[in-house]
Amino acid sequence: MPPRKFTYKSAGVDVDANTVWVDRIKHAMRETYGPRVISRHNAFAGMFRLDFDEQIFRRNYRQPVLVACADGVGSKVLLAAELGDLSTVGIDLVAMNVNDMITCGAEPLFFLDYLAVHKIEPAKLVALMEGISQGCRMAGCALLGGETAEMPDIYAKGVFDLGAFAVGVVELPRAVEPERVMAGDRVIGLASSGIHSNGYSLVRRVIRERKLKLRAEYPELGETLAAAVMRPTRIYVASVLKLLRSYKRKRVVSAMAHITGGGLQENIARVIGPKCDVVLDRKKWAPPPIFPFLQKQGIARREMFRVFNMGIGYALIVRPTFVDAACEKLKRAGESPVVIGKVVGGKGRVRFA
Amino acid sequence: MPPRKFTYKSAGVDVDANTVWVDRIKHAMRETYGPRVISRHNAFAGMFRLDFDEQIFRRNYRQPVLVACADGVGSKVLLAAELGDLSTVGIDLVAMNVNDMITCGAEPLFFLDYLAVHKIEPAKLVALMEGISQGCRMAGCALLGGETAEMPDIYAKGVFDLGAFAVGVVELPRAVEPERVMAGDRVIGLASSGIHSNGYSLVRRVIRERKLKLRAEYPELGETLAAAVMRPTRIYVASVLKLLRSYKRKRVVSAMAHITGGGLQENIARVIGPKCDVVLDRKKWAPPPIFPFLQKQGIARREMFRVFNMGIGYALIVRPTFVDAACEKLKRAGESPVVIGKVVGGKGRVRFA
Repeated sequence: MPPRKFTYKSAGVDVDANTVWVDRIKHAMRETYGPRVISRHNAFAGMFRLDFDEQIFRRNYRQPVLVACADGVGSKVLLAAELGDLSTVGIDLVAMNVNDMITCGAEPLFFLDYLAVHKIEPAKLVALMEGISQGCRMAGCALLGGETAEMPDIYAKGVFDLGAFAVGVVELPRAVEPERVMAGDRVIGLASSGIHSNGYSLVRRVIRERKLKLRAEYPELGETLAAAVMRPTRIYVASVLKLLRSYKRKRVVSAMAHITGGGLQENIARVIGPKCDVVLDRKKWAPPPIFPFLQKQGIARREMFRVFNMGIGYALIVRPTFVDAACEKLKRAGESPVVIGKVVGGKGRVRFA
Repeated sequence: MPPRKFTYKSAGVDVDANTVWVDRIKHAMRETYGPRVISRHNAFAGMFRLDFDEQIFRRNYRQPVLVACADGVGSKVLLAAELGDLSTVGIDLVAMNVNDMITCGAEPLFFLDYLAVHKIEPAKLVALMEGISQGCRMAGCALLGGETAEMPDIYAKGVFDLGAFAVGVVELPRAVEPERVMAGDRVIGLASSGIHSNGYSLVRRVIRERKLKLRAEYPELGETLAAAVMRPTRIYVASVLKLLRSYKRKRVVSAMAHITGGGLQENIARVIGPKCDVVLDRKKWAPPPIFPFLQKQGIARREMFRVFNMGIGYALIVRPTFVDAACEKLKRAGESPVVIGKVVGGKGRVRFA
């Protein structure tokens, strides 16, 4: 006889705890459901109706194209774990995906998360799921499903990771494609809420090596360092889709970029095609206090612009005659737009004036 | 002046390495593309056409419903990392998602992965992406996108995690729903290829505590322990969809279950509704050698059936008059089907005879 019996629980995985967890997060998912979600108990997969009874969908889309994105929050999760506050990274997770999606003009339909943890602790993780649910409601999409994986041998105690996927739809002839960008177009930047969700390995290194205190209020910031670095990523879905829908026939927006890792230069370069350059004017906006604060700790300005959004979270390349009207519409939708640059003939590069 | 400058690279993240990596995996993605994928360079999001030019899609689906799943491979990734062989876990990743998806009768359309690593090592990780690509081709879906996150502070050296999402489509009136299950129905089990992708925390604990050698060939297994535990999860998409499509009008299949964590009992219980029980007959099939081998190391039989698939990876609940014909069709499609039980009146429980 073997000396003692192995059980799955003794190996560190508690199947019953997972069942309790799934029950706990149902409300966070239900709050995001619209009439196109088919609610099914215990299902292996989530179902989302393309053609609602009243043919809302078929009427709106003649040539629907599905658009899908995958992204995570990166090492911002480690700061959240350290601070014991998981309430905001869920919004970041949604934002990272839906802000990518709207760059081609698509409307987010549904969202699924992949949460991997050391141990499923429902009391703590519920805050995280509620953040995801809140983000989904801000982006107008349904939290259709997800997976919570308990892997004590991969994730250290208190550590977790977050990945996610979003699916949306766009009318094919109205999809925003890079080929439209032309010399003369202007670049409108929308203000970010802060660091968003990129560059946190560097942020954490600076905090560690300069012995900065997360809970301390720094005069340059006007708030605690924790508040400044944990502010959730702004979700641009409502305002950007509203702008696109306000022009039924005219092609006003040539291209759009979500400013993530690689900063303004790399992300705008992704959408301008090989025959144009973009010239950005740094003097047109002032990066919010967290950026000069970090730079002062010992990061080169060039590196700052390569890693962080520097205050501009989303960029729209717009036909010159529509710039003022577009800025006005974006302002009315709650954004802070600034004309930060223009398109000239070139080779697909983005440079600062 | 600060004593030294911080860079993103010095904080452990190499943006250029990521660009090289994205270029390296393009071919693995392209191999999975069908005519409905819109290929776009450097895009923020993947695009999948619902209505192909010839209206193939619209003709096939009158009331299309999108179906989405999220799942990971669990701690099987740790065994893959230990063995230095990442070539098969990509197939597991696809299998875990698409086998869930087909339980409602849906056809997989596209797939996105979330790969989180200590460090992007293209030479090593390419094998992983090629496995995902191979799995997608086996499941008939496009690898539309994904995210590779480099997070040295979360993942130890050599350690990685894998999550994924699949999106498919089903014709609403033909979706397989639990309410159909009736007393008298039979349960057909399809042979698994081995442990598939569940229970690996327990497998690893047993290997560790019993000091089993992964590279050793055990006579009871007839192969090395590594070969037995790393065999990729069987993908049931082609055979199951073929069976469903062979019955244009008749409702032959009442429900289906993918046998994952929780084993036959919990997973079949998810799809039978509250008014039926299922009685399974253990004598109808012999679990492949890896299961008695693991049990002998000191796992109770009850626990074995709660954690592992025990040789049955997928279950179909079928109307009694069609059982023989369905088994015949499944055999011709390459499966090894066995009638393992039947449905009786009850309260939603699954028990062994």
